[in-house]
Formats: sequence, structure tokens, C-alpha cells
Amino acid sequence: MTRAAVESLSPPVTSPTLSRRAAGLRAPRGFGDASLVAPAPDAIRLTAGVPAAELLPVAELQAALDELWRAGAAPRALAYSASPGIEPLRGWIARREGVDPGRVVITNGGMHGLGLAVEAFVEPGGTVVVDDPVFPLFLRVLDLVDAAVRPVPVGDEGLDVGRLEDLLRSGVRVDAVYTVPDFHNPSQGVLTGERRRALVSLAERHGFVVIVDNPYRELSFTGARPQVAVFHDSPNVVHVNTFTKTLGPGLRLGWLVLPEAFVEPVVQLRNRQDSHTSTLTQTVVHQMLASSPGWFDALRDRAAAGYRSRAEHLVAELRRQLPGAFELAAPAGGFFVWPRLVDDRVDAAALHEAARRHGVDYQRGDYFEAPGGGDHSRRLRLGFSAHPPERLTTAVGRLALAYDDVLRTRA
Amino acid sequence: MTRAAVESLSPPVTSPTLSRRAAGLRAPRGFGDASLVAPAPDAIRLTAGVPAAELLPVAELQAALDELWRAGAAPRALAYSASPGIEPLRGWIARREGVDPGRVVITNGGMHGLGLAVEAFVEPGGTVVVDDPVFPLFLRVLDLVDAAVRPVPVGDEGLDVGRLEDLLRSGVRVDAVYTVPDFHNPSQGVLTGERRRALVSLAERHGFVVIVDNPYRELSFTGARPQVAVFHDSPNVVHVNTFTKTLGPGLRLGWLVLPEAFVEPVVQLRNRQDSHTSTLTQTVVHQMLASSPGWFDALRDRAAAGYRSRAEHLVAELRRQLPGAFELAAPAGGFFVWPRLVDDRVDAAALHEAARRHGVDYQRGDYFEAPGGGDHSRRLRLGFSAHPPERLTTAVGRLALAYDDVLRTRA
Repeated sequence: MTRAAVESLSPPVTSPTLSRRAAGLRAPRGFGDASLVAPAPDAIRLTAGVPAAELLPVAELQAALDELWRAGAAPRALAYSASPGIEPLRGWIARREGVDPGRVVITNGGMHGLGLAVEAFVEPGGTVVVDDPVFPLFLRVLDLVDAAVRPVPVGDEGLDVGRLEDLLRSGVRVDAVYTVPDFHNPSQGVLTGERRRALVSLAERHGFVVIVDNPYRELSFTGARPQVAVFHDSPNVVHVNTFTKTLGPGLRLGWLVLPEAFVEPVVQLRNRQDSHTSTLTQTVVHQMLASSPGWFDALRDRAAAGYRSRAEHLVAELRRQLPGAFELAAPAGGFFVWPRLVDDRVDAAALHEAARRHGVDYQRGDYFEAPGGGDHSRRLRLGFSAHPPERLTTAVGRLALAYDDVLRTRA
Repeated sequence: MTRAAVESLSPPVTSPTLSRRAAGLRAPRGFGDASLVAPAPDAIRLTAGVPAAELLPVAELQAALDELWRAGAAPRALAYSASPGIEPLRGWIARREGVDPGRVVITNGGMHGLGLAVEAFVEPGGTVVVDDPVFPLFLRVLDLVDAAVRPVPVGDEGLDVGRLEDLLRSGVRVDAVYTVPDFHNPSQGVLTGERRRALVSLAERHGFVVIVDNPYRELSFTGARPQVAVFHDSPNVVHVNTFTKTLGPGLRLGWLVLPEAFVEPVVQLRNRQDSHTSTLTQTVVHQMLASSPGWFDALRDRAAAGYRSRAEHLVAELRRQLPGAFELAAPAGGFFVWPRLVDDRVDAAALHEAARRHGVDYQRGDYFEAPGGGDHSRRLRLGFSAHPPERLTTAVGRLALAYDDVLRTRA
């Protein structure tokens, strides 16, 4: 019976009412499902932060699955697991993070960790400080608690902790501070060691939680990786991480490192949502990670080298094919370049439209603006990770055609 | 630095405060993680509602994984998917459910579907009618919204819809009604067709949502399966289902059938929590389901026959080894027997303790009591699904020893 047919009966149907939590949610623009829209056949999409298929351990995953079945472990991988995750995987991660395994909670990827952190620490209507520019899907997570957002700038040295301190001194009470410390998305800065300590110290003095979102940490182009121990040593930091960028987004596998006192409440929250993360996924990933000592480091190094060469190629092509068009910094890790349009005659929105017409897409800088924060409309986020160098050359060529179009139209 | 060391510094550390949502959550008793406690080496645990490993498609899953890699589909299975799930899987489920694929949303299993339904439709502090006795983990889900619970009895014919109507007539305003219509957990009743229609009609008149939780539906011992079309035809029903009992809990794969108007808000809620369900899991399960026409039905029939023989064996052994001790009905599907202790001299809690000493465990009836509802302390929930007949014989033998102990102590 269709809805219309139901309504033709008497008494009339009264549909249920959505909770306020669910009623106000809107599809994010530019991100999430929108970036899964089928592209034009030959379009090059620099829109997403996705790993390259050829840099993921596809063959190793198959070998690990084979080994599970060969060893008779498959039935166990099909059974329920404990809510915080299977012990061997928690243990492997804990050794790598340098924390007690009891502080590691397995999640369905980084977004899940962010959602849990927000729901555990932010009261409905509470206040959350975020990076400016910000990873926009975190703002969507904040919709879950209808939080007020206070932006604090991020630059080459990461979050401007001095500006955060000013904000706190002005009497603003915050529940949480959100930042991406390593190879920031989108702006590529790295939070300095000094700022890490200052941030943690502010958190401990003011009693807020720092939600440290670290999906790109492993993908350093220089091998340099600022310390995370300062985060793990504090009772005020939730460290969110994921295997999405190194082993594959489709696994949906990540983890939290939590202050000891908060493990149990977060686990209780999590097991009320969906019990636990897929045992099969957890088991096979642990099988890969434990397959040989150094396996993950070798995979990571191979991937980082691949992304480094793509980043360098993209930056070189931007400089070669569009000389002077952008102010841009070569990233030291991660998946993105974040150039700024220099020539005021070039309208950023018009450039984006023209680029799409020429068969190249990217995320516009204004997608990364936090409410009340800075103007990032002159920026482009170019995601190079999924594209081999020759495609990046083509992409920049198309962007150059678009740039010329916009300049010509203007003239 | 340990927490103690941090506290020895000045200024003192102020830990973050948990949200009210997270602060009040307690570990459920008797269920969830507690049922994962390592048992004594030879203990027989009739505690959980878990499928038998030998009735799950372990070999078929391996074949499906092989096929994914052989066909070059593995990289796609490692990529992000759309939040509502991959189209082929939504389509397969939709055909089976007799609904438009756009109404199917893939979840991380049944608990996840329950959580989403509650968060989408129940305001914090709202009122939810539940089965009495009730699947206790649903009460834990209600903790997420701090809901007030109103129990309505379930019997052989399922939820007492007349009692629900009386409650509504008395002026109680409810946000949602929760029931397990097929092979109820724990009490094994099946909601009649007439009551299904009456329940939906009440929902449509009063504007509440019915959360229909249906994990055991496929596992009918007689092949009889009451209609679900009455649920799908209403804009007031969320139908929650899962592959947990048929393909394995460790997959964490289930689905919702939603009224069309609520698909988008529920998807928006869900993608803010954890983006989407594992693409790998979705892809390999679809590969199995689509491997040949009727594959799932054949698997289901084989499993249902296995569970039926275990159920019949357990009931026969209870009657043979403990004649007259219980009032009990043979289940028509699902995973449980729900006997009631007849002899008032036998204390139920003492029997449970004695049973554990003798090496058999089960869930006590009082674990299934809803606040303000009936006394179910004289019941035992015996989960037979994971145990072959000979182990069930041994389990009942141990229960008989425990029963004699309790009677003797009493005498």
C-alpha cells in the first residue's frame, strides 16, 4: 500500500516525529556522499582524501584471509568479539602507540572515533574549538550534539595555541578542542612540539578534552613524525586514528587511545551503538600486521614514498603550467596541496566551474571554512593521492585551460 | 608520565567532564561483554544467542573472497562506499523484503539498526513501550536517550496490543514501541497477523514509530513466517534486521527497511557516526548472496533444520531428565527455550548458582525484566543454538544435578 493509499483511509495517518537530533541534519556540501557521485567518464577528480589502490596491501590482504581459513580461525572471525576490540589487535596498536593495551578501543574508522569522542565529551549545545580551516566532516559530527563552534586558525605550525589561550582568557568555556596535528587537512601544517605541550597544558588547566585527529600521521614524506607521547601522557587527550589511509577506507577500521578513566564509559557508549567492529575485519588486519616484524613500516614507507613523488610532481606541474598563479607550499606528508590563488582577477568560484567543464574537479577552499572563521575561498584543496603522475600532469593542464578561460572571460 | 605524576605537578590537572549521555552508562549485567568472559574449561554455556559455527557459510565465504580477488574487485571493496550501503546489496535485500531499494539502509548489524532507530525517533527523556519480557540490550540502547520505559506483556501471540491500546487510551504519549515479532527473544512467541495490523494501526493513529526487531525471522522451524508486508506498507514502522544469525555475528552486517520519508535523515545521522559499513564485508556478503539463485534460502533451511533438531532435543531432554520441573513450550523458531520453574521450593537464583557450579550456565529470567513489568525470575533462557545434541544432553544432566542439590539443600 502506498503512502497516498494509506492517507486515503480514515482515520488519517500521523507519521512519527523525528527527534530534534535527527531532524536538522543536512547532507554536507562538497563532501561525503557527494564526492561519490559518478564523474564524467574522463574527469580527473582531485576531490577526495583516498589512498591509491596500488599502494594498498591488496595481495597481502588476500594472503592473510587465506591464512585465517587455513589455520581454522575463520569461525572465530565470524563470532562476536568484545566491544573494545580483539586483544591481539589492541595489543599491536598499543605497542606502536606506546600505551597500555587497555587504553586502545577499536573503532569503525576515524570518523567513528571522532563521533564517539564528541558524544562522550560534548554536552548538547556545548562549545567546541576547531581548526580554521577545518576538515568539514568534523563539523557534521558536531551536528550530533548541536555544538557551538569557535574557530582558531591553523598555519604551518598547526593550531595557533596562543589564539586559543586568548579565547580561554576571554572567558569562553569550551568542552573540546579539535585539531589535526600532522599534515593538516586541508592546510598541511604540522603542530610543533612546543605547541603540543602548550595545548595539552591549556586542556589540563581548563578541563577540556583535546580531540586529536591523526589519519595522515604515518604518511610523512621525510620520515619526521612529531611526538604523540605528549598526547598519551595527558588525561585530557583523546587520540583518534585509523587504518583508512594505510590499509584502505573500505575496511572501516580505526582506534582511539583514551585516558584510562574514560575507556569504560566510551566502550559503554560504543557498544550501545553497534556492539563492536567487525571481528572478521579486525582479525584479518591483525593477521597482516603480525605477519612479520616491520611489515607495516615497510608498507607505510612504500606508500609514503609514492605519495611524496605524487605531491612533488603536482607541485612542480602547478609551478610549470600555471607559473605565478598560486602561492603554494610543498606538503611534508598527507594527501593534499592547498594552493592560494594570487591574481585577484581570477574568481575562485568561476575557476572551479571552468575546471569541472574542462574535466578536473577539486574541493573549493570555502568548503573548509569554519563558522565565524577566516575566508579560505581563494584556496583549492587538490587531492593527489589517488592519481599517478601522468594523470596529475593532465589534471593541471586542464586546470590551466580553465584558468585561461576565466582570465579571458574577465578581460 | 602516569596520571599520578601529572597530578603531582602544579597547576593541578582538571580532567574533562563526560557528557551526561556518556556518564550514566553502566555495563549490562548478564549480557553483552559479560557473556564473553572465558568460561571454565568444560563449562557448557547456554547463555548467548549465537549461531553454530558449523551452520554458518564458512567455506562459502572463503569462496566468495577468492572470487572477489580473482575478479579484480578487491580494490573496490577496500574503497569508501556510499553511506546507505552498496547498491547491489541494498537491491538484493530490497527484492527479498519486497520494498524499493531506496528504503534499505545497510547497518553494522541489528544492534546498530536499533540504535539508529532510537536516536532518530526518541527525544531525550521520551517514552518507549517495550516487550515484557524484553531483549535486555534494547534497554541499554535506550540509555542513549535516557528514555522512560513502559512495559507491555508479550505472550505466545506476541505483544499484547490490547494492553498497548489501554495504555494509549489512558493518555500516555509514546515515541516508540519496540517489539520482536518473530520467535521472540526470550519468550518465543510470534506476533499474529491480526495483532500486526492492530499495532500498525495504533501507530498510525497515535503518531509513534514501531521498531520491529527481527533477527530470528529466517529461522522458522516449520517454514511458517508471518507477513512483514504490513510493516513495510506503513509510514510508521522501522524494520530492523541482520545477517548475524544466518551468516555470522562477526560480520556486523544488518539493514533497516525505513519509511521513504525517513531514509535521508537516518542516513545523515548514520554517516555522522561512522560514515558507512565496511565495504569489504558488504561486497563479500553480496558475492555470497548472489552466487546462485536460492543460495540463501538453502543455507537458511539447512540452519533452521539444525536449530530445530537442537530445540527438540533440548525440550525432550528437559522433559526426560527433569520431569515436571518446568512448564515449557517447544519453540517454533529462533535460538531459545524459555522454561518456567514449577516447584516453589526451588529458588531460581540458587538453581543458577548451583548450575554454574555443575558446569552449565544460562541467562536468568530476571535479566529480561523491563522496569515496571512482570516478574520473570522463575524463568530460564536456555540458548541451544551453538550446541550439538550430545552437549545439550550433558547440559541438562548438569542442570538436573543442580536441581537436586537445590531441592536437597532446601529439604
